[in-house]
This record gives sequence, structure tokens and C-alpha cells, in this order.
Amino acid sequence: MTAIGIYGSAGRMGRAIAGAIVDQGAVLAGGCEAGGDPLALARIADVLVDFSTASALDAHLVAARTAGTPLVIGTTGLSAAQHAAIDEVARDVAILQTGNTSLGVTLLGMLVREAAAKLGADWDIEVVEMHHRHKVDAPSGTALLLGEAAAAGRGAPLSELRVDGRGGLTGARSDGTIGLASLRGGSVIGDHSVIFAGEGERIELNHRADDRSIFARGAVKAALWLADRPAGRYRMGDVLGL
Amino acid sequence: MTAIGIYGSAGRMGRAIAGAIVDQGAVLAGGCEAGGDPLALARIADVLVDFSTASALDAHLVAARTAGTPLVIGTTGLSAAQHAAIDEVARDVAILQTGNTSLGVTLLGMLVREAAAKLGADWDIEVVEMHHRHKVDAPSGTALLLGEAAAAGRGAPLSELRVDGRGGLTGARSDGTIGLASLRGGSVIGDHSVIFAGEGERIELNHRADDRSIFARGAVKAALWLADRPAGRYRMGDVLGL
Amino acid sequence: MTAIGIYGSAGRMGRAIAGAIVDQGAVLAGGCEAGGDPLALARIADVLVDFSTASALDAHLVAARTAGTPLVIGTTGLSAAQHAAIDEVARDVAILQTGNTSLGVTLLGMLVREAAAKLGADWDIEVVEMHHRHKVDAPSGTALLLGEAAAAGRGAPLSELRVDGRGGLTGARSDGTIGLASLRGGSVIGDHSVIFAGEGERIELNHRADDRSIFARGAVKAALWLADRPAGRYRMGDVLGL
Amino acid sequence: MTAIGIYGSAGRMGRAIAGAIVDQGAVLAGGCEAGGDPLALARIADVLVDFSTASALDAHLVAARTAGTPLVIGTTGLSAAQHAAIDEVARDVAILQTGNTSLGVTLLGMLVREAAAKLGADWDIEVVEMHHRHKVDAPSGTALLLGEAAAAGRGAPLSELRVDGRGGLTGARSDGTIGLASLRGGSVIGDHSVIFAGEGERIELNHRADDRSIFARGAVKAALWLADRPAGRYRMGDVLGL
Repeated sequence: MTAIGIYGSAGRMGRAIAGAIVDQGAVLAGGCEAGGDPLALARIADVLVDFSTASALDAHLVAARTAGTPLVIGTTGLSAAQHAAIDEVARDVAILQTGNTSLGVTLLGMLVREAAAKLGADWDIEVVEMHHRHKVDAPSGTALLLGEAAAAGRGAPLSELRVDGRGGLTGARSDGTIGLASLRGGSVIGDHSVIFAGEGERIELNHRADDRSIFARGAVKAALWLADRPAGRYRMGDVLGL
Repeated sequence: MTAIGIYGSAGRMGRAIAGAIVDQGAVLAGGCEAGGDPLALARIADVLVDFSTASALDAHLVAARTAGTPLVIGTTGLSAAQHAAIDEVARDVAILQTGNTSLGVTLLGMLVREAAAKLGADWDIEVVEMHHRHKVDAPSGTALLLGEAAAAGRGAPLSELRVDGRGGLTGARSDGTIGLASLRGGSVIGDHSVIFAGEGERIELNHRADDRSIFARGAVKAALWLADRPAGRYRMGDVLGL
Repeated sequence: MTAIGIYGSAGRMGRAIAGAIVDQGAVLAGGCEAGGDPLALARIADVLVDFSTASALDAHLVAARTAGTPLVIGTTGLSAAQHAAIDEVARDVAILQTGNTSLGVTLLGMLVREAAAKLGADWDIEVVEMHHRHKVDAPSGTALLLGEAAAAGRGAPLSELRVDGRGGLTGARSDGTIGLASLRGGSVIGDHSVIFAGEGERIELNHRADDRSIFARGAVKAALWLADRPAGRYRMGDVLGL
Repeated sequence: MTAIGIYGSAGRMGRAIAGAIVDQGAVLAGGCEAGGDPLALARIADVLVDFSTASALDAHLVAARTAGTPLVIGTTGLSAAQHAAIDEVARDVAILQTGNTSLGVTLLGMLVREAAAKLGADWDIEVVEMHHRHKVDAPSGTALLLGEAAAAGRGAPLSELRVDGRGGLTGARSDGTIGLASLRGGSVIGDHSVIFAGEGERIELNHRADDRSIFARGAVKAALWLADRPAGRYRMGDVLGL
């Protein structure tokens, strides 16, 4: 049985992952929080899952590389430098980094990319997300993931196309842009919509997370898949054969 | 038969109203554009409809008062001073001012107000609208109308509660606020959603305009209703008996 | 502190209610399952909540009346004869019967009734619901509750207006009817939409249950409210002051 | 310039196509209604478009083959025998048959097929459509097209998987089935949703037709594309390079 180690084991996702490990027939190698020894955990685990914080990632990357243990990264808010560090470490060990571990969002990202590529620039793209009232940043990491999928379908980075928080005298919509809007309220786990609006018709591709367990389940699935992979940087789509 | 005069008769709404007048068994008294004589039109019409521009409103108010002819105002983007001028003129002649002349939006505004009043401040309120890519301002006048209905249900003006264009490190949602978000794309005539998000459940009250004719039809209906009213300031809800 | 007794205490709702009782500062008087003594429970409880089965209701009504203990009935699938029996027992003791104990659905029912009354018969009404794949009947009790609210707004019983499961050569839609459609899949807790479709525009009034706890919480709220009421038959709207 | 002939030229779609032909830089070769001479039209046209009735199709196929003129078929309600006849005639001349000529629906069908193939049978599939109150059959041809795309993704014909008009004591949902539900009301041009419901999450792929012109525009686009093709049976996806 595969032994999974968890960085950020005391957080909400960390605890959910510990539960999902048992359900999927793996074993928990152990957990590690701030102040713990990342390398000790990396040495006893077959594969690691990181849902701690962006600031802790660097130490976890060093531990994974030193121990030669594959690492699933679900932490969000990573810097460009951290993405470069991931690429570097992925030369020596298998790393899977993702903004969302659910099967549904992963598939949706693929569909969004295809739709954006096929529809052409006269179809306007808008991404809308809704999360609970306690979420402290906007837009969500998943909205950015979907926006990037749409931008990739159009052959440009999202940073060149995105328009956030429309308001006031905006003027007419600029061709080829991708709008991002964020709603907050109640206890909503996570709803995402990507709208393609053409002349006289619309396509909407939506995902609704009805239960938080989907993220933990997907993270464990990713860990089990990654445990045996050669060095390299992977995506959730690889796990799911997309 | 009631004779209806149109200020802004050459615009899209003006022309649509001219068509709707015939359908509803009234007659067109005439139209007036920039450079025309508002008073001459006011004298021959039984009732006036204004879908011109905010800057032209003052002259139309003077004409309506001088001629003693009731006036339906559908122009948006009015200033506080103009609202005060409407109140003043409404002492002498019947005036109906509205941000949306459709029956559906008018009813929705009433439902939103009631829901906001009954649900209490632990239900978060978000207003989302989508319009075509040519729209130059955000949020839409109808989104503001719905936001004001929600705010009224909570006993405060929208200006104190509104949060526009969320983005970045927003922090957790502030209690009692009303979020506004605007989507743009394609040829969408106008979709509006008011979301009430509570702990574990959500209510969504939506309106979709599938055809622009609803606005012209509602404007004519309002004009026919207003033609015989005594002086005073009226709302679409009065026309519909809401 | 109010002592609440639960009929159907071992079922999913029964257990959820036991949890919600503690959260809301009441105490659990006890539970009763098939084979238990309904009267013994009724004698020690201040108020009873029944989420057992329709076939067990008759015995619970007798127990409530004999002990003089108010009763909240959340069991669905009741016969016309059982509704008559509830009316009869409600002469002697306070009874609240409802197809849905959530605040959101209760408010939505009120909004649906109002909208149906205001919009008139040229707006077509459709009710759509989605529930998880394990649900064994269709449409849901809540869809019927909403359909009845719409029918009441039009001054007729739902039985005269309803059209279920459209298919084949249906012919054009009959004026004034109310359509009902049921979707099933996944783990959906319960989504309901009431669509009012007019010429050129639509209003949609939706409810989404994101968490099953809303039903237990509402049932306990109803029980606490009912404990002190005089004899009579009540609705969830009474609890919520709607 | 390509000369397009229209079978069913006096119907709503026929007239809309005549308008779209001019907009897209083609010319109208002529129209033909019941009682006209299909072969005469086929001889003078470069390509034919048929939006007449299923009963008229056989004569149009004969005319197209005799004249050697490609034919776009948008008529719905075809029998299995007629599909076989299309296959037969397509040996000699290019034929494109489709249940929906819009770009959006065509792309959506492709996305639905992919999603159904990737998600596996533990994701339940439901197709919901809404059309105006005058539509006389259910479900819509487009709902069937989308249902077939979903079924194809699962490697089975829709006829083996479909469940229409759920109602009463249905029992739990059967694994692998595809539900179909139809809503009717107002003036809705055509909304379609395909819902994939998994454990704890949902994907919804939606299309909304906001304007009937999309169908005529797509039909002309298909005709212009087909005019130069060799014999064979084609689909809308071929026109769009999907």
C-alpha cells in the first residue's frame, strides 16, 4: 500500500485528505505542520501532498528533492519564482501542481480550452465564480485556472487578455478580452461559469462543487497516480487521462 | 384614442415605441429629436414618453409642465439634481420615471425587496447582470434598480451597502453589503440575477429579456396608464398594480 | 429549556434533528422508532417532530392529541385522508405540517404565489427540480409545494393545472397549465426552479439546498415556535412571519 | 457567386435563409414549396437547402441526385428509412443532414460527447430543453442531438439509454441512463442544458439561442461549404472544422 505524507495536515484540506486516504486504500505516512521536519516526512512517505501555504512551499520542494519523493502541490497563490522552482525540482522528481484537484474542474478546463480555440475571437468570454463569504481573495484560483485555459485556447497568456471588476464608464467591450467577476456569499463551496457569448447565441460551461470531499478525493487520486512516475512536471489532466 | 409624443424618437427605443403604439391601439402624436421643439410636441400630445438623453431631460420637463402633459421618463443616468427637478415638476403634472419599463423587471424588483426584508442580514445579497458587448457603462440601470430594491428591503440606501467589482485581497465579505457584478458579451439583451446566499442554501431571483420589444410595449402601457392621472410622481409598479 | 421528542429518530433526518436540537439550545426528550411507544414519548416531550413514514403518522396523531403535545410533521407522501385527520386533530392541539422545513423554500413559496397572482395567465409556469440518484419518487414534495403555491396564486388547485413529464406529440402548450419536470443525478441535495415565461421575457425563482442541515435546523426552529401555540393547523410561513 | 435553392422557402426558416443568403454574399437561385417542381430548382441551383417537411424529403433527395446538386437537410422528424435513403443518395452527391445549424449547438454536441466519454458511467447525464409555448413536440430535435452525442460518448445508441418524462414511483436512477426533460413557455427560442452529475460535483454544458437568425446564418454557411464537396454524407461539425 502506498504511504502518503501530508504537508499542512492540520488544515481543513489536510484533515479531509487524511480521511480520503483510508477510503481509497492507501495509508497515512504522517503529517507535518509549520515547525515540523519536512525532510523526515519526505523520507518515510512514498508520495507527498502539500496543502499548506505558499510561504512553506520552498522548504517542501527541497525536502521532496532530497528524499526523491514525488510531490502533489495543491497550495495556491504561488509566485512566478515558485513556479520556476517547481520546474527546476521537477527535473529530479515527479511534481504535480494544480489549482484544483477535482475531476470536474479538470475536465471543464479542457472543454473551455477547446471551446475557446474553436469559437474564435468574435465570441466574447466571461468567467464568473461564487464562493462563501469567508473567502479573502478574488478571483478564485480556479477562476484563474479556467481563464488561463480560455486564454490558452486563443494562444495568449491570460495576463494580456483579462479584464477584472468592470465598473463605471467602461466603453464598449474590447475584442478578445476575457472578463473575470467574483461573487461572495453564504456557504457556497465553489461555483464557476465560463460564458462564450456570440452573436445571437451563448454557450455556458459550468461547474458546481456540492461537497468539499471532491477536492480531497482528487488529491489522493493524484498522489496514488504520481507515486510511481518518473521525474517531470505533471497536471491533473495527466492523472485523469485527459 | 390617446395620442403619444416621443422625445428621442429617432433612437432605437424611440422607433420601437412608435411601433408599439400602433399595436396597442394608440396614435403617435409626433416625435422630437435634438434641435426640435419640445413644447410644440407637448401641446399636441395627450402624454409624452422620453427615451432621449439625460442632458435633454431638463427641457422636456419644462415643456411637460408648461403644456400640462403627463410624461413617462425612461432615460437613464439621471443626476440627483434631475431627480429633484422631477419631484418638483410632479407637483403640477403626472410624471412616471423608471429604470426599466418591462413588466418582468418591475415585478422582480418587488420580489427582491420583499425577500431582502424577510431574509435578514445573515443572507448575503449579490446582483449580477449581463449585457451585449456594445454597452458602455456598468452596472446596468436595471442592476442598480434591483440593488436599490434589495437595499430598500433592508432599510438603507444602496449607496451605503454596495460593493462593486471585487478583486485582489478583499478580505472576508462585510455583513449587510450588496455586491454588484457586470458581464459583457455577444448580443445579450439583458439578464439580471439577484442572489440571496444563506448558510447552506440560496435563493436566486432572475430576469431574462429575450426580446427588446418588451421595453417598448411596457413604455406604451405606462403612457396609456399615465395619460389620465393627476399630478404626482409614479413608478412602473403603480401601472402594474404591484 | 424546551424538550423535543422525535418520531423517526433513527432516520437520516431524525439524527440530523437530534444534532440541531443541541445547537439551538433545546434538549432532546427522546426518540421513537417503529415498535416504540408514541404516547410515552408524547407525554414527556414539550413538542414533537415527526420525520418517520406516512404509514406511521396516524398513531403519532393519536399520541399527540392524547398527550396534548404540539406536533411538527415533516413526513411526505400523505394521503387526502391523512390531511383530513390532521385538520381534525388540530382542533385540539397545535400541528404544523410542511413539505419543506427550510427558510429559503418557505420564502420562495410565498414569492411564487405572489408572482403567479400578479403575472396573469399569459405567463406560462414551469417547475423543475433536481435531486440525487437515490430518490425514488418524482416530482419532489417541494416541487409540489411550489406548484401548489403557483396554482394558489392563480386561484385553482394544482391538480387541475398540472402537466407532468411532457413527451411525444404534445401539441401546443395549454393556457394556464403548470408543467412539472424532474431531473435525477449524482448527490444533488435539492435544486428547485419556478419559471414564469412571458412574451419576450422570463422570470426564474430558484432555490438551491447546499447542505442538508438547513432542513434539520428549520425543523427545530419550527418545533420551538410551535411548543407554545394554541390548537390549530400551522405552516412554515407562520414560523417565519411570512 | 454561389446560387442557393431553398425547399420550404415560404416557411419561417425558408424566409430567414433567403435573408441570410444576401448577407453572406451568395445569391438566391429560387424557392420551391409543395406543388412546385423540385427538379427544376435543383438544376439551376449550385446547392440546395431543405427546411420543408419530412414528408417532402424523398422527392427532394431524388431531385438532388438527378441534378447532381449538393443538399443541406435541416428538416427534423426523419424516419429510419429516410436516414437510409440519405446514406444511399450520399453515394452520388454531397448531403449534409443536421438537427441544428447553429455553430454553438454544433460545438456543444462535440463537448458533450467528449465529456461523456471522459467522465464514465458513475456521472449521471440529464438533458433539459425549453422552447416557446407553440412547439408541438417534445423533446426537441436538438435535445435528441445532444442526447445522442452523450450516448455516443458512452458507446451506445440513445435509444438504449434514454429515460423520458420521469414521474411517480420511479425507483432509484438506473446506472448509465440519460434523462430527457422538456419545458415549454412564452416565446423562448431554444435553451438546452446537458448536466453531468457526479458524487459531490456537477458539470453543466448549456446553449441559449438568443436570436433565430443563428440558424439561418448557419444553414447558409453550411450550403456554401457543401457546394464544392465530393459525394458523401456530412455533418455540421465538418463545416466548422470540429
